[in-house]
Amino acid sequence: VTTYLEPERILRLEADRVVFLDQRRLPLEEVEVSCRTAAEVADAIRTMVVRGAPAIGIAAAYGMALAAATGEDLVAADAVLRESRPTAVNLAWALDEMRADPSAGHARAIHHDEVERCRRMAAHAAGLLGPGTRALTHCNAGGLATGGYGSAVGALLAAWERDLLAHVWVDETRPLLQGARLTAWELETAGIPHAVIADSAAASRMAAGEVDVVFTGADRIARNGDTANKIGTYALAVLASHHGIPFYIVAPSSTVDHAIASGDEIPIEERDPAEVTGRFTARNPAFDVTPAALITAIVTEHGVHEPPYERSLEAAVVAA
Amino acid sequence: VTTYLEPERILRLEADRVVFLDQRRLPLEEVEVSCRTAAEVADAIRTMVVRGAPAIGIAAAYGMALAAATGEDLVAADAVLRESRPTAVNLAWALDEMRADPSAGHARAIHHDEVERCRRMAAHAAGLLGPGTRALTHCNAGGLATGGYGSAVGALLAAWERDLLAHVWVDETRPLLQGARLTAWELETAGIPHAVIADSAAASRMAAGEVDVVFTGADRIARNGDTANKIGTYALAVLASHHGIPFYIVAPSSTVDHAIASGDEIPIEERDPAEVTGRFTARNPAFDVTPAALITAIVTEHGVHEPPYERSLEAAVVAA
Repeated sequence: VTTYLEPERILRLEADRVVFLDQRRLPLEEVEVSCRTAAEVADAIRTMVVRGAPAIGIAAAYGMALAAATGEDLVAADAVLRESRPTAVNLAWALDEMRADPSAGHARAIHHDEVERCRRMAAHAAGLLGPGTRALTHCNAGGLATGGYGSAVGALLAAWERDLLAHVWVDETRPLLQGARLTAWELETAGIPHAVIADSAAASRMAAGEVDVVFTGADRIARNGDTANKIGTYALAVLASHHGIPFYIVAPSSTVDHAIASGDEIPIEERDPAEVTGRFTARNPAFDVTPAALITAIVTEHGVHEPPYERSLEAAVVAA
Repeated sequence: VTTYLEPERILRLEADRVVFLDQRRLPLEEVEVSCRTAAEVADAIRTMVVRGAPAIGIAAAYGMALAAATGEDLVAADAVLRESRPTAVNLAWALDEMRADPSAGHARAIHHDEVERCRRMAAHAAGLLGPGTRALTHCNAGGLATGGYGSAVGALLAAWERDLLAHVWVDETRPLLQGARLTAWELETAGIPHAVIADSAAASRMAAGEVDVVFTGADRIARNGDTANKIGTYALAVLASHHGIPFYIVAPSSTVDHAIASGDEIPIEERDPAEVTGRFTARNPAFDVTPAALITAIVTEHGVHEPPYERSLEAAVVAA
C-alpha cells in the first residue's frame, strides 16, 4: 500500500484559523502554522509556508472563509490575498469562486475537488507510461503543492501503484530546494525509489539514457499551451526535446488561464536575490515560461491534451 | 586598472611547504592552508582546498618539488598525487613533466607558464567578441582555477580590459557553488558588472535575449573536441545551441588529452552524495561531457580551434 499525505495534514480550516504544515521547515521538522486573519494567510502564501499553485488557491479559499466566519471586510480580504503571489492563476481562480459563496463548506469543497482532480489527472498521466519507467521531476508538484495527492508527483504515485515506475530523478530545485526537501520527502513516504540530483545534472542523466519521461506541474498555462512553472522547467523542456524524451505538464484545469493568449503575458515573480546568494549581486526569477512547442502533452483531470493546445485545452473547458 | 589575484596568493612553494589559499572558505574568509608532504598536497586536492584543472596540475608539480626537497620517496609521492582526483588531465600532465626534473624551479616554471598561457588564450578569446557583450559562465575558470588570471574568466578580464564586456551572468554552480563563491568574488575584485543566478535560470536569460556568448573552462578535452567540465556545462551547451548563442571552451592546451579519441573514455568523478543533500538518496556526478558538435570553438594559448577538432587541436600540438 502506497502511503501519502492526508490533505488535512497539509492545510485545513478550523473554526477560527487556517492551519498549515510549514513547508519551509520540511523535511527537518513537521511544524504547523496557524493563521487567524486573511492577512496572516496572505503572509503564509508570500513567505511560502504554503506553496504550489493549487495549494495557494486552496489557502486563499480558506482565507476568505476565515474572513467571512470572523466578520472581516471581505473586499479587503480578497485584495490582500490576491496580491500575495503574482504568477499562479489558481489564486485568482479560487478567490473568484469564493466571491459568490465565502462559506467554510465551499472552501472545503474546493480543497476536496482539487485532490479529486489530481487523482483523475494522475490516472490519465500514468496511462502514458510503459513498465520500468525512469521519470524525472522538478520542484514539488506533489500533495504539498496541491493540497493532497499531487499533480506531477500524483502521476508518479499512480504509475507506482500500477507497477510502471522503476525510479525517479528528483531535481533539487534551487534556490529553495523544493525538490530535495519536499518531493524527496514525499517519495520516501510513498516508498518510491528515487535520487536527488543537482538541477544541472539532469542533462547528463538524459544523455546517459537514464530518463524516459519528464513530468512537471505548472503555475499558469496560457491558451496556446505556453506554461509558466518553477525556474528551470524551461531548461528541462529544451533538454528533453534535444534527447527525444517526452515532456509532460500535469496540472489541474484551474491552472489554465484562458484570458491570456501566450506565455508573453504571464508575469514572472522576481524574488529576493538573497535566496540565491547572501553576498554578491544576484537575479532570482522564480519561474520561467516553456513554449508550447516543447511540451509533448498537457495532462489535466479531463485527459491528455495534445497540440494544438488552443483547441485541445478549449475542448476541455467546454466538456467541463 | 583591472585588479586580479596574484598567482602566489593562490598557491606557492616555500622551502618546506606548499601554501594554498583555501578555496572552500572563500568568499567569507581568506585563509591559507600549508602542506608539508606530498600526501598533504594530495589531500588538499581531494578535499578541494585547491580546484580547477590547471591549478590542480600546478599543485601536483609543487607537491613533487616539495617531496624532492624534503627527501620523500618520489615514486610514492607521484602515486598519491596522481590518484587525488580522476577527471582533470592536467594532473597527470604536470606529474609527467616533473618526472624528468622534480626541482622547485621546474614547478615554478610550470606555474608561470600556465598563467602566461591564460593571458594568451584570453587575448584570443576576447578577439571573438564585439562591444557590449553579455557573457555567461559556469563554475570557476578564473585565476583560482588556473593559478592566476584564469581561462574562461581570463577571457572576461581581457574583454573587460578592451571595453567589450557589458555584463556577466554567473551560474552559482551547485552543489559546491564555485560560481557564486569564487567567480563572483573574482569579478567583484576586478570591478566587472555581474549577477549570480541559479544554474536553472540560465535558460530563461538566454530566451530573454540577455546572453550573447557562453565561456567555460574544461577539465579534459578528447582528441575529437568532446569536453569534460563541471556538471551543468553540457546543459548550457545544449541550451546555447537551441538559442543560437556561441558556446566557447577556453582552456590551456595541457587540458587536451591526445591519448583518448572521444568523451566516452573520460572518467567522471562521482563525489559524496552528501554534497547534494544531507538527508535523502542522491547522485553527485562532478562533471559531464559536452559533445564536440555543441562547441562553437575551443580557445587555447595557440589560438581559436574550430571544428573539426581532431585536425585543429592536432595542428596546435605540432605548432607547439
